[in-house]
Amino acid sequence: MTSPTATLLISCPDQQGLVAKFANFIYANGGNIIHADQHTDFAAGLFLTRLEWQLTGFNLPREFIAPAFNAIAQPFNAKWELHFSDTVPRIAIWVSKQDHCLFDLIWRHRAKEFTAEIPLIISNHLQLQEVAEQFGIDYNHFPVNKDNKLEQEAKQLELLQQYKINLVVLAKYMQILSADFIAKFPQVINIHHSFLPAFVGANPYHKAFERGVKIIGATAHYVTSDLDAGPIIEQDVVRVSHRDEVEDLIRKGKDLERVVLARAVRSHLQNRVLVYGNRTVVFE
Amino acid sequence: MTSPTATLLISCPDQQGLVAKFANFIYANGGNIIHADQHTDFAAGLFLTRLEWQLTGFNLPREFIAPAFNAIAQPFNAKWELHFSDTVPRIAIWVSKQDHCLFDLIWRHRAKEFTAEIPLIISNHLQLQEVAEQFGIDYNHFPVNKDNKLEQEAKQLELLQQYKINLVVLAKYMQILSADFIAKFPQVINIHHSFLPAFVGANPYHKAFERGVKIIGATAHYVTSDLDAGPIIEQDVVRVSHRDEVEDLIRKGKDLERVVLARAVRSHLQNRVLVYGNRTVVFE
Amino acid sequence: MTSPTATLLISCPDQQGLVAKFANFIYANGGNIIHADQHTDFAAGLFLTRLEWQLTGFNLPREFIAPAFNAIAQPFNAKWELHFSDTVPRIAIWVSKQDHCLFDLIWRHRAKEFTAEIPLIISNHLQLQEVAEQFGIDYNHFPVNKDNKLEQEAKQLELLQQYKINLVVLAKYMQILSADFIAKFPQVINIHHSFLPAFVGANPYHKAFERGVKIIGATAHYVTSDLDAGPIIEQDVVRVSHRDEVEDLIRKGKDLERVVLARAVRSHLQNRVLVYGNRTVVFE
Amino acid sequence: MTSPTATLLISCPDQQGLVAKFANFIYANGGNIIHADQHTDFAAGLFLTRLEWQLTGFNLPREFIAPAFNAIAQPFNAKWELHFSDTVPRIAIWVSKQDHCLFDLIWRHRAKEFTAEIPLIISNHLQLQEVAEQFGIDYNHFPVNKDNKLEQEAKQLELLQQYKINLVVLAKYMQILSADFIAKFPQVINIHHSFLPAFVGANPYHKAFERGVKIIGATAHYVTSDLDAGPIIEQDVVRVSHRDEVEDLIRKGKDLERVVLARAVRSHLQNRVLVYGNRTVVFE
Repeated sequence: MTSPTATLLISCPDQQGLVAKFANFIYANGGNIIHADQHTDFAAGLFLTRLEWQLTGFNLPREFIAPAFNAIAQPFNAKWELHFSDTVPRIAIWVSKQDHCLFDLIWRHRAKEFTAEIPLIISNHLQLQEVAEQFGIDYNHFPVNKDNKLEQEAKQLELLQQYKINLVVLAKYMQILSADFIAKFPQVINIHHSFLPAFVGANPYHKAFERGVKIIGATAHYVTSDLDAGPIIEQDVVRVSHRDEVEDLIRKGKDLERVVLARAVRSHLQNRVLVYGNRTVVFE
Repeated sequence: MTSPTATLLISCPDQQGLVAKFANFIYANGGNIIHADQHTDFAAGLFLTRLEWQLTGFNLPREFIAPAFNAIAQPFNAKWELHFSDTVPRIAIWVSKQDHCLFDLIWRHRAKEFTAEIPLIISNHLQLQEVAEQFGIDYNHFPVNKDNKLEQEAKQLELLQQYKINLVVLAKYMQILSADFIAKFPQVINIHHSFLPAFVGANPYHKAFERGVKIIGATAHYVTSDLDAGPIIEQDVVRVSHRDEVEDLIRKGKDLERVVLARAVRSHLQNRVLVYGNRTVVFE
Repeated sequence: MTSPTATLLISCPDQQGLVAKFANFIYANGGNIIHADQHTDFAAGLFLTRLEWQLTGFNLPREFIAPAFNAIAQPFNAKWELHFSDTVPRIAIWVSKQDHCLFDLIWRHRAKEFTAEIPLIISNHLQLQEVAEQFGIDYNHFPVNKDNKLEQEAKQLELLQQYKINLVVLAKYMQILSADFIAKFPQVINIHHSFLPAFVGANPYHKAFERGVKIIGATAHYVTSDLDAGPIIEQDVVRVSHRDEVEDLIRKGKDLERVVLARAVRSHLQNRVLVYGNRTVVFE
Repeated sequence: MTSPTATLLISCPDQQGLVAKFANFIYANGGNIIHADQHTDFAAGLFLTRLEWQLTGFNLPREFIAPAFNAIAQPFNAKWELHFSDTVPRIAIWVSKQDHCLFDLIWRHRAKEFTAEIPLIISNHLQLQEVAEQFGIDYNHFPVNKDNKLEQEAKQLELLQQYKINLVVLAKYMQILSADFIAKFPQVINIHHSFLPAFVGANPYHKAFERGVKIIGATAHYVTSDLDAGPIIEQDVVRVSHRDEVEDLIRKGKDLERVVLARAVRSHLQNRVLVYGNRTVVFE
């Protein structure tokens, strides 16, 4: 499967013939579909689909795929995205002091679990600079406080542009991004260390301990201007007991955070996630 | 292990020698400990333990165990309960219209997973009367509205007394018990159809669907005057996806509710649950 | 979604245009697809798909759907099945002495989790006759030993025919069906009380205890002539510890067996399971 | 809890008074028990316990604890081990070509999840030498084939002695250690990439794929001369589907292998694992 592929992510009001028409567009141009999945949200009256096909043998040159498909999609009021598998996305990882998600993402990148480049780490602290150097990734330090936040965000946005970043991954970045930042750079995935919507905000493990829960969780979601309320991509949980102190919850939680964030990033990078309203479809 | 046993559940301020002294009380009187477990909450400075021993060969007659142990426990400011395994607790199951937890509890009772009697079902509806009759359990119908609630609760309390009920299990009983009721009859276990503290209150599956979570849960807890905020005994979860509509969440949730409630009731009946503050220790 | 639907389950050698051509067959005849999913096994070179569409508004009369689709399928060497959602399948549940799966299937049937009829219970013992009577299901007792097995199977097959049974569910039936029986009636789902392929054969919980595993499982699979080796439909597991004796494994396992069998039966009844080789695709 | 502690792991034939007598030994000498747990295997007639107490304030000097306890233990035919929390164990990690478990153990060590030193990596390949250098750990390369195996093992044993290694962790070391090696150095933990006893031996993920299982697992166990049959310390599983090819099983399995091995190593290092027969008690 080393042939490059194209992927369409489409959502449009449900109606008859959508599967046939979209599939036909690919077939008529000589494409071989290797993944097709769809979902209908009957309550919302919405049809959502993902189509991936091999570009080898596809008769339509790359630059014409978008305009050609647009002609088909427009009558259906479809929203759509087109991605090519050989366009490698560029990730900026944002961290504070904790290194477990950073280490994990770097290891997965080395292990080729992700097709992406990680040229940039941004942090409000200095602690993880050493890790960045160890793996040869640029590290930019932006101390943030109430007064300089907007100013720093402006610089950060500039840096993202300069590095041609496609996706920001908040890998335990303990600052809240402003609504304005999100509006300007909306492709941001965060890992929250609780089973959302339980324990929104700061110190979720302390709150979980206080509440005496028997299971803790982690949640990866797209960041919106509403704190910890963005569309959820992935969640997972682990059992705890009365024997677990707050520090045990933190330790067990780290293992969750690593895999939950990694799965979400991977799904996103494979163009398997379609957001609609405040929900996601994650095509498998 | 058919010999009857005694069980002590003890909590007291932590200090040296507690394990030795409590174990010694049993050994000195010729008892054979078959289960001993303890937990220290260092933050709270609290020692919590469960001791179970065989009564055969125990030299102290049953009626003297409590006073004799009290003499040992008092200097430590210990709170404690004493239970005998051949004293069969009596359960009242409260239901509304849904039958899955009721059926499940009855089946487990028949399968001897619980040592208990279930002589009474209380409901605010008539739908499950037939099930009660099928299994030969008394069914009492108490329609509840704003105006008659306190009046009905008075009658319900009377009925619990009359049936010598030790434990009320709210098996999808869709009414809130008053603080006054709970004060008078505190041994009440409820099953809430969410992963608390997420989705407190009514319609948790609808809320879970709206929020787009990837995992749903169920929570069994002791009922307190604070809605859905009592000490948690057991929780479990199941994975859901974008393909699951609200009705699928409800269906998958039922399987969770059954096992989570059953495990909590079983732990309670085996005197394995110790409540302190708003937390529980569940000895395994 | 109360409109009746038709479902096609198709498997054929992979080639270009399959999604488009099959979807087009439905669209061209005025059908509204409500579920389409497909999978390509690249190693096996096999394309597998499930298509479900509403019959209301479909221009092709029911009796012509099969021949019309056959004309399309034949050139692709496709194997396919056609099902209608309003054709209610008939299940025979086979049991021995344990009642938990039987009770569970009956409860789910009453709760309308399954669209099926359960007119018949077959057993090699008498213990569960009472349950059958309680729920008004015919109970047939076939004691089985080495000498009479084939003879009894002949009668059982006759009974299945007489009751127009489409699916046999072995709900803890502790006898092995002969290869000949399976050849004559291949639609048989079994629940095995282990995480296959671990602990094939008799007494898996005892073997699991001996081996000291930390997790136990249950497996629902189609029955083949090779014991416990048929295509797996569903599996699940539960954590155990050194505190669990064999009887605890059995108790915990029962909860697994119930849900694993129920999920497998439900997937089968919704025509979501496609067998190829010794594997299954379970479309979600 | 920074005060150093002593831990006793004891197993002996069950009899009356064991809890009291062992606890009393600690109390009588002024010790404060911070963890006490016990388990009785009634079938085996065996009592197993773990006692941990603070050394500050304990009146018996360290060097006399063992002989003093021996006097108490001998009449009960007890087997026991004594450990001090400030004696830091030394680990040798053995690897082949895969780096995920190695990276994970190193990260956890840095994150202080383990109290241990990791001075030595042994490998039959050269691939991970770079990782060793990156983290400043000695790397010793021992190519192994049929002819040189015993010779190499002799050198490896010598190296373990030279580095004063207490525990060997086979972190995806793809060679089988000889029975002789195990006899001479029995403290060896291995991670096997299947849910044992399913898929013993080589290529478990390929076998899992062939069998069409819906769940895969990983198992950490002590190594014995019987391949993949030693006492299990920890297991965990993850759900897979027909969409997962062998390479997906391998990828998902890596996440399992990391956490399962880490949990087992941590339990071992905290002296929470007691082996008896081919089973383990893991005190929590």
